[in-house]
Amino acid sequence: MHLETLRWVGALPGHVEMIEQTLLPERSVTLAVESVDQMRDAIYRLAVRGAPAIGVAAAYGVVLGVQDLADTSRENVVGCAREAAATLAKARPTAVNLFWALARMKARADRDFARGLDGPAIVAGLLAEAQAIHAHDRETCRLLGDVGAELLHDGATVLTHCNAGSLATGGMGTALAPIYRAHAAGKRVRVFADETRPLLQGARLTAHELQHAGIDVTLITDSMAGRVMFERKIDLVLVGADRIARNGDACNKIGTYSVAVLAKEHAIPFYVVAPLSTFDPELDDGSKIPIEERPAAEITHGFGRRTAPEGVKVYNPAFDVTPARLITGIVTEVGLIERPNLARVEAALARGAARTAAKPASRP
Amino acid sequence: MHLETLRWVGALPGHVEMIEQTLLPERSVTLAVESVDQMRDAIYRLAVRGAPAIGVAAAYGVVLGVQDLADTSRENVVGCAREAAATLAKARPTAVNLFWALARMKARADRDFARGLDGPAIVAGLLAEAQAIHAHDRETCRLLGDVGAELLHDGATVLTHCNAGSLATGGMGTALAPIYRAHAAGKRVRVFADETRPLLQGARLTAHELQHAGIDVTLITDSMAGRVMFERKIDLVLVGADRIARNGDACNKIGTYSVAVLAKEHAIPFYVVAPLSTFDPELDDGSKIPIEERPAAEITHGFGRRTAPEGVKVYNPAFDVTPARLITGIVTEVGLIERPNLARVEAALARGAARTAAKPASRP
Repeated sequence: MHLETLRWVGALPGHVEMIEQTLLPERSVTLAVESVDQMRDAIYRLAVRGAPAIGVAAAYGVVLGVQDLADTSRENVVGCAREAAATLAKARPTAVNLFWALARMKARADRDFARGLDGPAIVAGLLAEAQAIHAHDRETCRLLGDVGAELLHDGATVLTHCNAGSLATGGMGTALAPIYRAHAAGKRVRVFADETRPLLQGARLTAHELQHAGIDVTLITDSMAGRVMFERKIDLVLVGADRIARNGDACNKIGTYSVAVLAKEHAIPFYVVAPLSTFDPELDDGSKIPIEERPAAEITHGFGRRTAPEGVKVYNPAFDVTPARLITGIVTEVGLIERPNLARVEAALARGAARTAAKPASRP
Repeated sequence: MHLETLRWVGALPGHVEMIEQTLLPERSVTLAVESVDQMRDAIYRLAVRGAPAIGVAAAYGVVLGVQDLADTSRENVVGCAREAAATLAKARPTAVNLFWALARMKARADRDFARGLDGPAIVAGLLAEAQAIHAHDRETCRLLGDVGAELLHDGATVLTHCNAGSLATGGMGTALAPIYRAHAAGKRVRVFADETRPLLQGARLTAHELQHAGIDVTLITDSMAGRVMFERKIDLVLVGADRIARNGDACNKIGTYSVAVLAKEHAIPFYVVAPLSTFDPELDDGSKIPIEERPAAEITHGFGRRTAPEGVKVYNPAFDVTPARLITGIVTEVGLIERPNLARVEAALARGAARTAAKPASRP
């Protein structure tokens, strides 16, 4: 039903195929990614984007960095895996899933090295780990969908910002997963999609994938979110996240904070939908989350045509932070964290850790 | 110092020259407007836009409709003036200045008819009336600037939405006039300009005219207004208006309401700057203001390239209404209306009527 953002092709050596998202919706092009540098570039250019998806992409990127070595000694494989991870970590600064996935890949290399495996076996283990991360993401999306679908009554209208759907993950999405699951269960759900300047992920990706799935979607500019709330068109807001601090402060695409303030003004529930891998247990609150600033040309020349005067100053933060006090709840794969705070987030993270420990299959 | 949006060229018959604003900032083209239909089209296409400017443009449009008649009888002149006014009134529905200016033109034709003037003299009177409306707008902008400049301390940073500058009026603007006046008085003033989707009047026009005037301007997307307020970068908000109800509810470019809600959340003063001609004394509150809906293509093909899927549903209201309770004050040519309500707005309108009555020069 939903679009497949990226996949590993072949065994070893193999490569990654992904939807070239910068060309959507005008053109549907598949991009073959065959090296670490190509993967770093694909992530930086937003050919693949969305916090969970870039975690999966980066994990496969590490495999691309070790599968074709002339020197297949176990020392060299682990060294090249670390080198690939370091390169990929520099692609984008904000989404914590990137670092979470790379840490998992490095830990797998170290564990297999410590077990005495030879180089080719460590490479095979890294592919298995990347595929496990991908499978985990797919399963997590479905769980997020099931938990979040409870929030959607028949006939509900959702406002969403940016794209946190199948194009942002290795599965059916985060914020859009509840919509897909509710739709599949026969509920009528309507969506208003903020276009999400500067890069129009809402217009280009969310509208595209919801339309593809047969879900009723209406496109608006970001500046219209307040108006449609004022007109009582919206029942609840669902958005994704790129990093969540331990107190529940959630970093997401620029403009999310404004939507949260508007939702509060109109007493509309505002939910963040994100896997536990999006939480950063090292951060007490959102003020420490690094906010990526992107090139001015995204605003001044966003669509192949100059739409601002030459030389104008531009401020282009790619993300903002929504304080926990504006968040009605965070939908995770271990349940809904209502009115998030430190204690409730830590309880959810502990449930997640217990769940992972009870399922050793994904950590061979 | 500021750009001249439109002007009457020649005596009678003459024509209007205006900046073709749809091509800014890439190209600076002067458009010659020689008929009522061309003027209606220019207003509809937003070649000229901004509530005060379209009032002035429409007034000149009435002159274009009567200056070249084969039958110059006084009956035909007045009939054609009425016909021109009816055509121009259909160009756009929201800005009340359009109807205010057309009513003034019709009243002038009726008055001169009642005085027994012949056809050519009525035409001459209509040109004089249009020029008086233009001169009145120019003077009003300067007064708005002087009243509003009091709100700007040295070093102040203003956020503005859309374009309410010289390109929106026959003078130096409404919301931008205080900035021009403060700048001319030697105060340092910085501006953050919302780009203002879908038609990017902030990026294309506000950034352009402020840069042209040597004022420090930084361009952001609409979705960043919340973030820059959160970062404490903004001291106050100045916006224009297209129609204001008697209770102070103010209709302006879509997205203004969101800015007002965000300003309230951050305890940032939010001012509307508008001439008394923008008030609609017939409306008790903002709920009755007609909101123009514009074509979907403005959102889906805004930059000469399709940026949304084929056939996607779009909602494109061009304006929204900011309730008076969110407005710190309305800057008018007769002073600041603090915390606007019915009594305070009516008092200001009464002061304006007294001022007009004391200056019969513009009503010969």
